[in-house]
Amino acid sequence: MQKWIFPDFEFRPQRPLFLCIISNTDTGKIPGISAAGTSPALTDYTPGADAELVETNKIVTMPELPEAPGGSPTPAIVTRAALNLTGIPSLFVASGLRKKPAIPYAELGGSAGNDIRKCIAVPETQALYENAMLLGKKLSRLSDCVFIGESIAGGTTTALAVLKALGYNANVSSSFASNPTELKAGVVEEAMKRAGIKDGDLKKDPLAAVREVGDPMMPAALGLMRGLKGTKVVLAGGTQMAAVLALGKAMEIEGDISIATTKYIVEDKSASFREIVEATGRPYYYVDPGLEMSKIPPVQIYAKGYVKEGVGMGGAALLAGIYGVTREKLVEETDRVLMTVELPKK
Amino acid sequence: MQKWIFPDFEFRPQRPLFLCIISNTDTGKIPGISAAGTSPALTDYTPGADAELVETNKIVTMPELPEAPGGSPTPAIVTRAALNLTGIPSLFVASGLRKKPAIPYAELGGSAGNDIRKCIAVPETQALYENAMLLGKKLSRLSDCVFIGESIAGGTTTALAVLKALGYNANVSSSFASNPTELKAGVVEEAMKRAGIKDGDLKKDPLAAVREVGDPMMPAALGLMRGLKGTKVVLAGGTQMAAVLALGKAMEIEGDISIATTKYIVEDKSASFREIVEATGRPYYYVDPGLEMSKIPPVQIYAKGYVKEGVGMGGAALLAGIYGVTREKLVEETDRVLMTVELPKK
Repeated sequence: MQKWIFPDFEFRPQRPLFLCIISNTDTGKIPGISAAGTSPALTDYTPGADAELVETNKIVTMPELPEAPGGSPTPAIVTRAALNLTGIPSLFVASGLRKKPAIPYAELGGSAGNDIRKCIAVPETQALYENAMLLGKKLSRLSDCVFIGESIAGGTTTALAVLKALGYNANVSSSFASNPTELKAGVVEEAMKRAGIKDGDLKKDPLAAVREVGDPMMPAALGLMRGLKGTKVVLAGGTQMAAVLALGKAMEIEGDISIATTKYIVEDKSASFREIVEATGRPYYYVDPGLEMSKIPPVQIYAKGYVKEGVGMGGAALLAGIYGVTREKLVEETDRVLMTVELPKK
Repeated sequence: MQKWIFPDFEFRPQRPLFLCIISNTDTGKIPGISAAGTSPALTDYTPGADAELVETNKIVTMPELPEAPGGSPTPAIVTRAALNLTGIPSLFVASGLRKKPAIPYAELGGSAGNDIRKCIAVPETQALYENAMLLGKKLSRLSDCVFIGESIAGGTTTALAVLKALGYNANVSSSFASNPTELKAGVVEEAMKRAGIKDGDLKKDPLAAVREVGDPMMPAALGLMRGLKGTKVVLAGGTQMAAVLALGKAMEIEGDISIATTKYIVEDKSASFREIVEATGRPYYYVDPGLEMSKIPPVQIYAKGYVKEGVGMGGAALLAGIYGVTREKLVEETDRVLMTVELPKK
């Protein structure tokens, strides 16, 4: 079998659990910022629809399949395929989620994140962090390996803002093939001005960075990491999750923590995934899911750098790999998921 | 050590999980029906406050400690004590819950149950059942023994209605020391007339019984039971959970399913807990938590038949017992919980 997980992921979980944090922000509605949802008006519905797709292969609360403007379908199809093939249980975790999915999920509370240019981003940071920690403690009693993905439109922009507030000189990825880096940098600059902070100002107070210029996914991920101490934790995502690693380092969160993503993120020259992760001292893994083998052109173009990551796609694919699923099988199942997904009747 | 669990509960779970379903109904607001909350206006807040108390020993969303009109505190204090002493993880599951707690919980969706005298009780029965089944399937991968309790005001009246619709000639318990059996019977009679059904009419269609005259806790419990196949399931409650067992039998739900409650329920002469459970062919367990040893009079009177059960108190006490906790220790911790619970500032 061709190697497609780098480096080897040697741990063999007995009771893995795949979590995915779903959140909304108004930052994600700034035109041109996010490719998650064909229009800013639909971005609020994207995380819930991703959850519905992964849990039931049926979309209920959004009129259409979440897709990028270029027509690439949501990475949730890969996550669904990987979990289908392995039977690994998933649980979506709502943190500051405006539009709730029609599937069972864990609720942490909180409001959607604000537009970071306009006001404090996540006023309920502390409460979300504490609730997530409580949930993490429970789950640590049940699972020996927890993956944590995310679905939050606009999340790379808030990731960039938080990284700057922590003093990282980093770039973040994008769900667009062509990263709107200038737009993002402009939004972040405006946000930092509004918050009255300069690069590195909040490196001693990471939760303040989240509150000021972050998003509601972040305190949820951090709280889970803290609460899951004793259980292996693998963040499943690209530069957004790398920013969570950076926050975790600044908060001195201990434990067996690593990050898993796709080759498409690691190879993204517009972003600095490796640099951020290496600065945190945590190991990273990446998978080459081989989506160029798909029979469906909008899926094939993932391999050309569209979408790249999201809904924990890289981590879910890694889990499938360590359960013995081949890339060919994963791609075949991804195509099947996309062809059979049930959409609301128009 | 004095024996206080009857009969012996021989299974020793490796990864137990304590679930508690929280729901609201308008049936619970009929004056005199429920002792959960000092006034009908506060009953909607009781399940959420119970969840907050068990999870954090702090009540946030209700102005006061949930208590019966006689002043007995919510049985959540015993559940909290038992889980504190054992470290067993808990997860509250909202099903048709109007007032959400300020703690992390699993959300199944749905609206609060209607007043069964006035219209169809739980229009979303099927969706709640399916969501719960999905959650149950996940949890079956993580836990080898799941206890399922409930907190729903007015739940014994809907239990009575469902039992009658299934053809059981049974009586149900009450959180009042003096069971308002005539009031309940009158409500149930009115509900069955409104629904156009007679005793036993729905024994072949148990989910229709829930939809017509039940409450939103029931489809959640049934779906969990179905989804948890392969994991040991212990329903934690009195006549309400006995009604769920009866529904489960009618639905031919298979698996290792039993029920655990308190001595106060088993000895309640106004109710027929044993008869209902025996008719389902499932084993039952009961604990004598020894609350007469409490130093706090409103807790002592549990032993005189006030409150009796709720928030899975009997099952949680049983779990504590099999983890080696003595009754003396459980009562001491119950008192400590009640003395230290944090209430909202007035």
